[in-house]
Formats: sequence, structure tokens, C-alpha cells
Amino acid sequence: MSIANSAFSKLDELGRKLEALEHAQSMLSVDEAVMMPVGGGEKRAEAMSMLAGMYHEMATAPGVGDWLSAAESEPLDAEQQGAIREARRTYTNMTCLSSDFVRKQVAARVRSEQLWRQLRPTGDWANFLPAFEGVVATAREEAELRAAALGLSPYDAMMEQYDPGNRAADIAPVFAQLKSFLRGFVPGAIAHQEEKLARRPLKPFNAPFPIEKQKALGLAMMEAIGFDFEHGRLDISHHPFCGGVPTDVRMTTRYVTGEFLSSLMGILHETGHGLYEQNLPKQWGNWAVGKARGMAIHESQSLFVEKQIARSGEFWEWALPHVSEHLGPEALAGWDLDDVLAQVHLIERGLIRVDADEATYPLHVILRFELEQALIEGRLAPKDVPEAWDARMHEYLGLRTIDDPKNGPMQDVHWPSGAFGYFPSYTLGAMIAAQLWSAIEKENPGAREDMRNGRFVGLNDWRNRHIWSQASFHSTPDLLKRATGEPLNAKHFAEHLERRYLS
Amino acid sequence: MSIANSAFSKLDELGRKLEALEHAQSMLSVDEAVMMPVGGGEKRAEAMSMLAGMYHEMATAPGVGDWLSAAESEPLDAEQQGAIREARRTYTNMTCLSSDFVRKQVAARVRSEQLWRQLRPTGDWANFLPAFEGVVATAREEAELRAAALGLSPYDAMMEQYDPGNRAADIAPVFAQLKSFLRGFVPGAIAHQEEKLARRPLKPFNAPFPIEKQKALGLAMMEAIGFDFEHGRLDISHHPFCGGVPTDVRMTTRYVTGEFLSSLMGILHETGHGLYEQNLPKQWGNWAVGKARGMAIHESQSLFVEKQIARSGEFWEWALPHVSEHLGPEALAGWDLDDVLAQVHLIERGLIRVDADEATYPLHVILRFELEQALIEGRLAPKDVPEAWDARMHEYLGLRTIDDPKNGPMQDVHWPSGAFGYFPSYTLGAMIAAQLWSAIEKENPGAREDMRNGRFVGLNDWRNRHIWSQASFHSTPDLLKRATGEPLNAKHFAEHLERRYLS
Repeated sequence: MSIANSAFSKLDELGRKLEALEHAQSMLSVDEAVMMPVGGGEKRAEAMSMLAGMYHEMATAPGVGDWLSAAESEPLDAEQQGAIREARRTYTNMTCLSSDFVRKQVAARVRSEQLWRQLRPTGDWANFLPAFEGVVATAREEAELRAAALGLSPYDAMMEQYDPGNRAADIAPVFAQLKSFLRGFVPGAIAHQEEKLARRPLKPFNAPFPIEKQKALGLAMMEAIGFDFEHGRLDISHHPFCGGVPTDVRMTTRYVTGEFLSSLMGILHETGHGLYEQNLPKQWGNWAVGKARGMAIHESQSLFVEKQIARSGEFWEWALPHVSEHLGPEALAGWDLDDVLAQVHLIERGLIRVDADEATYPLHVILRFELEQALIEGRLAPKDVPEAWDARMHEYLGLRTIDDPKNGPMQDVHWPSGAFGYFPSYTLGAMIAAQLWSAIEKENPGAREDMRNGRFVGLNDWRNRHIWSQASFHSTPDLLKRATGEPLNAKHFAEHLERRYLS
Repeated sequence: MSIANSAFSKLDELGRKLEALEHAQSMLSVDEAVMMPVGGGEKRAEAMSMLAGMYHEMATAPGVGDWLSAAESEPLDAEQQGAIREARRTYTNMTCLSSDFVRKQVAARVRSEQLWRQLRPTGDWANFLPAFEGVVATAREEAELRAAALGLSPYDAMMEQYDPGNRAADIAPVFAQLKSFLRGFVPGAIAHQEEKLARRPLKPFNAPFPIEKQKALGLAMMEAIGFDFEHGRLDISHHPFCGGVPTDVRMTTRYVTGEFLSSLMGILHETGHGLYEQNLPKQWGNWAVGKARGMAIHESQSLFVEKQIARSGEFWEWALPHVSEHLGPEALAGWDLDDVLAQVHLIERGLIRVDADEATYPLHVILRFELEQALIEGRLAPKDVPEAWDARMHEYLGLRTIDDPKNGPMQDVHWPSGAFGYFPSYTLGAMIAAQLWSAIEKENPGAREDMRNGRFVGLNDWRNRHIWSQASFHSTPDLLKRATGEPLNAKHFAEHLERRYLS
């Protein structure tokens, strides 16, 4: 159709304005983390809040709903119809909360998050609890409002914001299966690891590793993996992230000089996010449908690069000489492939999710998935969270947190800032990454050989065709099924773990 | 008055939104020069153009003119009345251009500036010309629109944006006087310098000066002069600037390792801009009246720090040990005060404005002032600029540029980015800086002694009272007259030059 003067074209033009505001918001966030002096914070916060207000006002202006309805009856091609469907979905998600409710919610979240930052260092749960109760109460109200607007259960309505199509009824059984597998697998893998380490202990690092050399290594690895430095860069921030916009992806890392692997693995993780962003379809950049699908798929892309590629033996066969080249020959003096693999495959039961390895990480997530469902559905009171957390942590990982809330329910910012329904994405991402690898290897049995030779183009092409170029044209489960030919299946992740840790 | 629900309060609230958009625009500009990879340029240009359009739309929305008219009859105090006067002035300047025209103009400017960045290194004038013609064409259109709205001549209407009250009829005779003075003074000063250098030649620099050490020196000098690092920082860019927002001032420099003075003097120059921005009245941050007065006054503040302070013998008596401390004792081995002064007072006829000394600099500016008037008035075609440039460069400084566009009309970003009417500000700034110094020394005859002891607080206090805190409450000529008791008077600058270069 000719789109001039159509409702579609009005939405297209609105999208250009929204894209510009998002561009500003993204880049200001990057600048805040990478560059901003502390005294700039107050005005920056005011500017960000004003820009967010403008964005919301523009995206939900009275005419927009009418344009959407009109566009739904315009003779559009299949891609355009997909764009309108996704625009309708985001519009519904954005308009189902009243301004009054959002104001109340922001106040509860800000109070809770500020108090959390203040009380977390001492693990003062008792004094944090009233604010946490406030944030859970508004999250329940939010879930009810979203559920009514979307025709979903309250917890599903919360997940829908992060991964469209995610349903607890689908995820719970897969997570149950995974939990059951891991409760047997983790002790076995740790026993296997102990035998190996008894024969050949971990080597101490030949520290220090100067930051400039680590940076050169990180940049070289990013480039080898396919990151486009014409459309992105790497900087330093306290909390590593991948931000910016698809045409200008801003990645960060942080360096320690005592070892080189945590920064390198972090860089490769963010590179996975970066590749996804850089390869989204440019022509839909001003539409919701042109954005990355959601948190689980995004995480699957970072974990694909970090876990499937960069922690594999094949990758390290290729990478080892490059590490020596950039860090200097003394960096790996006395080290061989097995010494590096012992480091990047190390499994340890721990209390902290963000420090966990890929084998124990899902148990941290499943714990949170179970508790936050119960919190949103009113089956668990906020005051009972420490006991529930402790019981599960003991059951899943044999660890206690009841006297240590700092390293228990106070460890993450998500709940204190009101983000319920997000945690599953991390483990869904890990499972999806493994499932994508299986599909790739089925199609190309030489995929591991490619990695061994530093050839990542084929792996990228496959993900570009099946994931990156698909942006938000399909729901999360549909996208996975179209890419791999089957729904989410925990066996791929289990096989990945068995292959890596038991062989 | 109670301002709730007044027109004044509506303008105050609008100002907060506009301030947020300006914040975004400023920071995106800084990021573009300091951080952005080349491939980010296209989308950045689109975002900047959209934000400029939104700003213009918001600032000139139908209701704003009514609010201004209503506020003009509200019972406001003197400062509030000043705020409304300046808001009216900027509103008139802004409404004489349509949103469509502004969008077209921003696109032409960004394209031309990006092309200039690409082609300048090879001086590829032929391939730059079409973009330059585009930018001149939109500048002429702009000048006609502004002239009609303001009842000024086209070129005055352009200058009015940068220095309210600047008129070619007032400036041209002062510039003519200055040109006449300089055409006698420069040869005389160079002859005087040659005699001195014959007795005591310039010492070669004890290069190299590592960038990290130069940076540490620059930061220490910025701090000594009064720059607040809680609200600003120093980075690197190809063309040094001072940008950002008053609460977060972003300065840049560029380093060469063969000597340390060009970067240090550049840093001190930008520090003068930075001090002005950091000390604007915070309570008017969302009003036009709270901004710096204009480009000539802004340049007077940078030149005050660079020329009046940092190139004076008294400053160097204090600074010399600090340079040794930061660059290492070998940096100044064999150098004394006279060796440094011979460098910072060096006069040389050269092709590049930004490299020019304070004695020849005004001739570069007067050349541009004359050519850009002719360009705007249609008396000069863009394609003829290289010839016209060459002819004047030969007449004023005895130099040729006809075969060297890189060092001729392609040397500056101003015209490529559409800034016509700006160049006079540099030399007005130099004259104002000298005039301010005269006023300060009249009030405090110990001002030079203060510099000799590294005491800059008194100099800052005076400028804070007379310039910084006054923001845009007065026109450029009025501000100068209130500060110094007399209108612009070239004799202070001439006396400054004679004192420094002929004594």
C-alpha cells in the first residue's frame, strides 16, 4: 500500500520522535555510568525524569490508540502487520497503569531502593522490611492491573513485560525438571572436579596483568567474535553493561590486575548482547518490532558467546596464543590449555547469584522464581521471605542464609526496585543458548571445528538469520521454536553441562 | 507575588522541559566529539535533528506567546521581569524560523560538519563544496528570516543570536581601527622580538612530554584557577571545546608530545569558559536569562584566563615550579622564566587561526568577519571563498592559501556547521578581556601581585560579581559598560599588546 497519510505513517513518524528520545536516554545513561562527575547527578536525574515523562506522554497521547485501531484495518504487508501488532502490545502494556498509580509506585520503589542501598551492607532486614512490604504491595497491585488489561494471571502479566509469551505454566515444569537434574548433577560435577584438582591443582595467576594489555586483549577478542567497532566501543564502568543504540553500541567492563579471566569473560558476555543489538533490522529502528525480543533472548545471546563459545575447550585452543600475544609471554608461563579450562569451568556452591557458575546459577534463579510467584500471588508474606529463602538455599545448594540476609534476599537490586518477573529470563537465556547451539551443531556438525580455528562467521550467520534479524516479530516461545524446531527443552542445557563437566 | 498558576509559573515549568532537552543535546554533542564511533553518526544526526525539532516546537508552541504577554503584565519582581524580557527576546529569535526550516537546517549542518571532518585532513575542497553550498544557502535563508523579524540587517540578525546588541555598524569601525593598529603593531612587535631572539634564541623543548604527565599538569592548573571537578571533567577531542551543562562542564583538549605549552594554554583557555558556566546562577537554570550572556562575553572569560592571566609574566613566576613538579625536573632543565615567556609571547604570522598568537589573531577574525558578511549578503559565492581568503590572507599577513584549503577556509568548524556571525565574538572577547583587566587593576592595584602568588580568588570574585552572576540580565554592550564603566574601547587591548610585546 502507499503509506502516505495512513495511520501507519503517523505511527512511523511518532516512532522517529520516540527513537530520538530513547537515543538520548540511552546515551545519557551510558555517559552517567562511564563519564559523569558526581556533581552532575542531580541535574542529570532531573533531565532523565523529564525525558521519560515526555516519552510516556508522547507514546500514550490520545491519538495513538486511534491510529493503532485505524492501522489494524489498513491493507498492510506481513511485516507492517507485525509492526502494528507489537506496537499495540507495547501500547497496552504502557497504558494499563494510571498516572496516579505510577506516581505511587515510583515513590514506593525509590524509597525501597534507597533504603536497600543504605541497609544492605549491614544486612538489616528488619528495618528494610516495611519498605519492602510497600514495594511488594504495589507490585501486587501492578500485577492485578496488568492481568486485567492483558487477560493473564498476575505473575504472567509481570513476566510479559520482559519476555512476551512467557507463561509460568510452561516454565514451571521445565524449571522443575532442571532443578531435579541439577540437584543430582551439581554434587557429581563437584566430585569429578575435586578428583581432577587433586591430580592437577589450580595454577596461581602470573599477576599483575596491566589494564592496558587486558584492554587490548579484550578489543581483539571482541573483534574476532564479530563486534563492529564502526558501530560501538568498549569503556570502563563500575557495573559492566551493554547499552547505547544499535548503530552505536556502548559496552563496558571493569578490570582487576590480579587475573585476566573475569574481565575477558565479562567482555565476551557483553559482546553477545552487542552483536544482537548491532544486527537488529535497521529499517524497523523506530518501531517496537525492531527492538530486541526481550530479556531471555537477549541473555541467550550474551550466554551463547560467553558460555557456548568462550568457555569451550575449542575456543581456548584457538584463543590461547592470542592471550599470550596481548598479555605478553610471561602471562601464561607454565600454563597450558587444561589450566585455563580448570579456571573457566570452575564450579562452586555460593550464596551470591551474580558470582555463580553456569551449573549452580539456575538454582539461584529457580529459588527466586518460586518465591516471587508466591509473593505476587499473596501466598508468601514479605516478612517470611528470609525463612523461605534459607529453606530453599539449603535444599538446593546446602547453604544457610538465615543469619545473613545481606547474602540472602538482600543481595539483588531487582525486588527492592520493584522488578518482579525478570529473574526467570536469566536461566531461560542459558537454556535457550544451549538449545541454539544444539540446533546449529545439528545443521553444521563442523561447528566446534570452526571455533577451534577462530571462525565465528558461521555461528553469527545462523544467529543473525534465526534471532537477530527477527527482532520482535515473534513472541519469545515462537522465536525459539522457529529457530530450533522445538519448544524450550531443558535437555539441551543438561547435555551441555554433562559434556563440559563430566567428560 | 504568588506565582502558582501564573503565566510566569507556566513558563517556569516549560523551561524545565526545555532544559532537559538542552541537557540531552549538549551531552550528545560532547559524546559525539569525545566518544562516538564513526558509524554512530547517521543515527546521531537523526536524533539531534529530532530533538532540535521537539525543542523548537515546544519553545514556540501556540500558548507560549500568550503566556509571555500575560507574564509581561503580572506583578513580578525585577529579576523575574528580567527573565521575562530575555524569554521574550529568545522567543522572537526562535519564532522567526519554522520547525520545518530548523529541521532542514540541522540536517544540512550535520551533513556538512560530518563531511568536513572526513575531508579536512586532505583539504578536499572540491568534494566538500556541495555540502558547504548547502549550508551557506540555508544560512542566507535564515539571515533573511531573522532580519525580517528583528528589523535588522541580515548579518546583524545573525550576530544577534550570539551577542545581543552587536551591530556591524558599531563593530566595523572598531575592527577597522584595530586592523589599522595591528598592521603597524605586528611588524614592529616582530622586529622587536627578532632583536630579542637574536640575543637569546628560543630554547628547544626537552621533549617528549608524555600525555599522562601533561594531563596531570593541566588538571592541577585547572584546579588552581578554580575549576570545580565535582561538576566537570577534562577529555580529549580533535577540536578542543567547553561543553556540557553548568552542573557538569565537559572540557576537552588535545595533546602533542613535542611540547607542553599548546595543550596547557588550551586547557586554561577552556577553563575560563568552564568557570563562567559553573558559576551561572543555578536558580535561573531553566530560563534563558540564566544562561551565559553570549559568545563575546564567553570568549572574554576564556581569554581573560588564557591571555590576561596565563600568558602573563606574573602567572609564570608562580607556575614554573608546578610545571616542573608535574612534568618532571628534566622538562624545564636549562629553562628560566624568560625562556617560557619567549614561547608564550611568540608572535608569528601563520595560516591557522586557532594556532595564532593574540597579536595576529584579530587579523584572522577580521578576514572572516569581512568574508562571512559578504557570503550572507550574497556578495560572495561559496565557490569563490578560497580566492577571497587567499587575497586577504596575503594582504593582512603576507601569506598564501590558494593551494592549501586545509589551512585556508577548511581549517575551522564554524562555517561547515552553519555558524555565521560568530567569528567577531573572538576578537570582541579579546578586547573585553583586556578592558575587564584594566577595570580590575584600577580597583585592585595589587592584582598582578596576586597572580604572582597563585591567588586567583580575587580575580574570580570580581568576575563572578560583574559577569558570571549577571548571566543574561543585560545586553552585551550594557553588561560591559556596567562592569567597566565605559563602552567597548579598543585602547585597553592595544595597551595590553604594547605593554606585553614592546616593553
